[in-house]
Amino acid sequence: MKRLSEKQVIDQIYKALSIMKKRTLWNDDISTVKIGNKILAFKCDMFVRSTDAPKQMKVWQMARKSIVSCASDLACKGVKPLASLISLGIPRNFTQKDVAELARGFRKAEREFYVNIIGGDTNESKDLVIDCFVVGLASKIIKRSGANNGDLIITSGPFGYSSAGLRILQNKAKAKSNFRKKAKDTVLMPKARLEFGWGLVNYVTSAMDSSDGLAITLYELSEQSKKKFIIDSLPTTDEVKEFAKINRYDIHRLVLQGGEEYEIVATIPKRNLKKVLSLARKSKCRVFVIGHVETGRGVFMKRNKKQERIEKRGWEHLV
Amino acid sequence: MKRLSEKQVIDQIYKALSIMKKRTLWNDDISTVKIGNKILAFKCDMFVRSTDAPKQMKVWQMARKSIVSCASDLACKGVKPLASLISLGIPRNFTQKDVAELARGFRKAEREFYVNIIGGDTNESKDLVIDCFVVGLASKIIKRSGANNGDLIITSGPFGYSSAGLRILQNKAKAKSNFRKKAKDTVLMPKARLEFGWGLVNYVTSAMDSSDGLAITLYELSEQSKKKFIIDSLPTTDEVKEFAKINRYDIHRLVLQGGEEYEIVATIPKRNLKKVLSLARKSKCRVFVIGHVETGRGVFMKRNKKQERIEKRGWEHLV
Repeated sequence: MKRLSEKQVIDQIYKALSIMKKRTLWNDDISTVKIGNKILAFKCDMFVRSTDAPKQMKVWQMARKSIVSCASDLACKGVKPLASLISLGIPRNFTQKDVAELARGFRKAEREFYVNIIGGDTNESKDLVIDCFVVGLASKIIKRSGANNGDLIITSGPFGYSSAGLRILQNKAKAKSNFRKKAKDTVLMPKARLEFGWGLVNYVTSAMDSSDGLAITLYELSEQSKKKFIIDSLPTTDEVKEFAKINRYDIHRLVLQGGEEYEIVATIPKRNLKKVLSLARKSKCRVFVIGHVETGRGVFMKRNKKQERIEKRGWEHLV
Repeated sequence: MKRLSEKQVIDQIYKALSIMKKRTLWNDDISTVKIGNKILAFKCDMFVRSTDAPKQMKVWQMARKSIVSCASDLACKGVKPLASLISLGIPRNFTQKDVAELARGFRKAEREFYVNIIGGDTNESKDLVIDCFVVGLASKIIKRSGANNGDLIITSGPFGYSSAGLRILQNKAKAKSNFRKKAKDTVLMPKARLEFGWGLVNYVTSAMDSSDGLAITLYELSEQSKKKFIIDSLPTTDEVKEFAKINRYDIHRLVLQGGEEYEIVATIPKRNLKKVLSLARKSKCRVFVIGHVETGRGVFMKRNKKQERIEKRGWEHLV
């Protein structure tokens, strides 16, 4: 029996629900509802131990990580979190110590991601399941569809670390000890670009969280904006390039087809670059300018003056 | 190893989180945040197939049932739903047909419970997990703590059907065919008293959803209101009494220590009874006046002019 992809599941449910008519919703980073002149923004993300946690991940790291995706998705839309609920599915063999560790992870996440956990639900389940729900309130939301001709394409940090980290955790790749730790931490202790996202709201034309992989993210922004995206430089570092070389990985695939990076990918008018770089300094993140927006369709890599179409591939859960 | 009760899990997480200081929250039916002069109310509830679904329950009924608890919890606080998110954990062997059926259940629930599903998340998991999150907006919220001396204690319908239904589904009890169907439907297709709850907001002093069982619900209202609750009549029907008799069940336990009834238990000033009964007629539910509120503590059953303390026992997931 052919297994269903995440997209197939979503499409199927779409078809049956009334949200069919307003399809921006399930397909965007967040869902929104207008209240007067404000926008209420929602995001939920389910963490399942058996599919989402490498075996080296500690229980408190799972709790912490279950929040990062919601926090990042709201931040890349310029939304600050207002409150959060956590639904727990707890396996029978969970001990009091495990629960205490879970709680420690939530407390850490509350401080780090500025979420305020005000309620939740607990259940018994076969697998450890942590479903995080965050709501935020905003006056303005950054969309995926606003990119204009001439805009610069930026990322809030380097790519390749999480893919490298996953391979290292699975003992499938060699790495120098410094890089080893850094790459593993990207998987076990992912960061979110909160302050940068919240500040970016006034300077960008479109933005999206990159957790499905850089290529998918670029295609999504390009398709929703109905523009051509030209990439001329990979957002990565020398140590990632070295890691790729040692392990004979294609650096383009490592950077473009990874996932779970939680970086913000955005388009900005050229005139805002200085302000965005200054915001990045304040938010302690390193911005990469990776290309620009043109009339047309598709996402292309500029190599030796030629344009090659980038493969639209990335991270998929249910495949 | 001793297994943890749901309460122990919640207490442990409480201890670690900042919500310790504002403990009404995880312990009430819903969580709330003030926005200007409005109240934003949240509720999440996780449905796990292996622990929550009798084997006779169909996939579309699971999807539908996953919404009823949130809808009921908001309604008993007088809150109308604004929007809903659904997080799905889908097992590997789920077919396209299963997903279509799931979607059909959500569509049914959307119409029946007036929830608007605007987004969600899909994942792979060992068990079918449906986590429903609903948010509502209100000007006023019915609390658990407002019962006054002399108030009448009412329920929005009869008790005993869901416990009977569960026993029938497990082939542990005999029943006449009419009652059989009705009791099974209470488990497989639970209803929520939405219109009654929304209307009740102006007439009650305290209210709570009864899904943890009637005894637990009465104790919770009594403790939070710091009042004594005297029950003089069980909210049930002749057919439930007959079912208890046939199967030699204690009718008091069947009615008081059930669970998943999704009825509203509330206290109302005597002068509001007529209005409440008229509201019940309009909302097509049958109100039972089961007792009254006095100075003191505890929940008691009046039998032959004596007061017997009601056992504080009910439905617990993780036990």
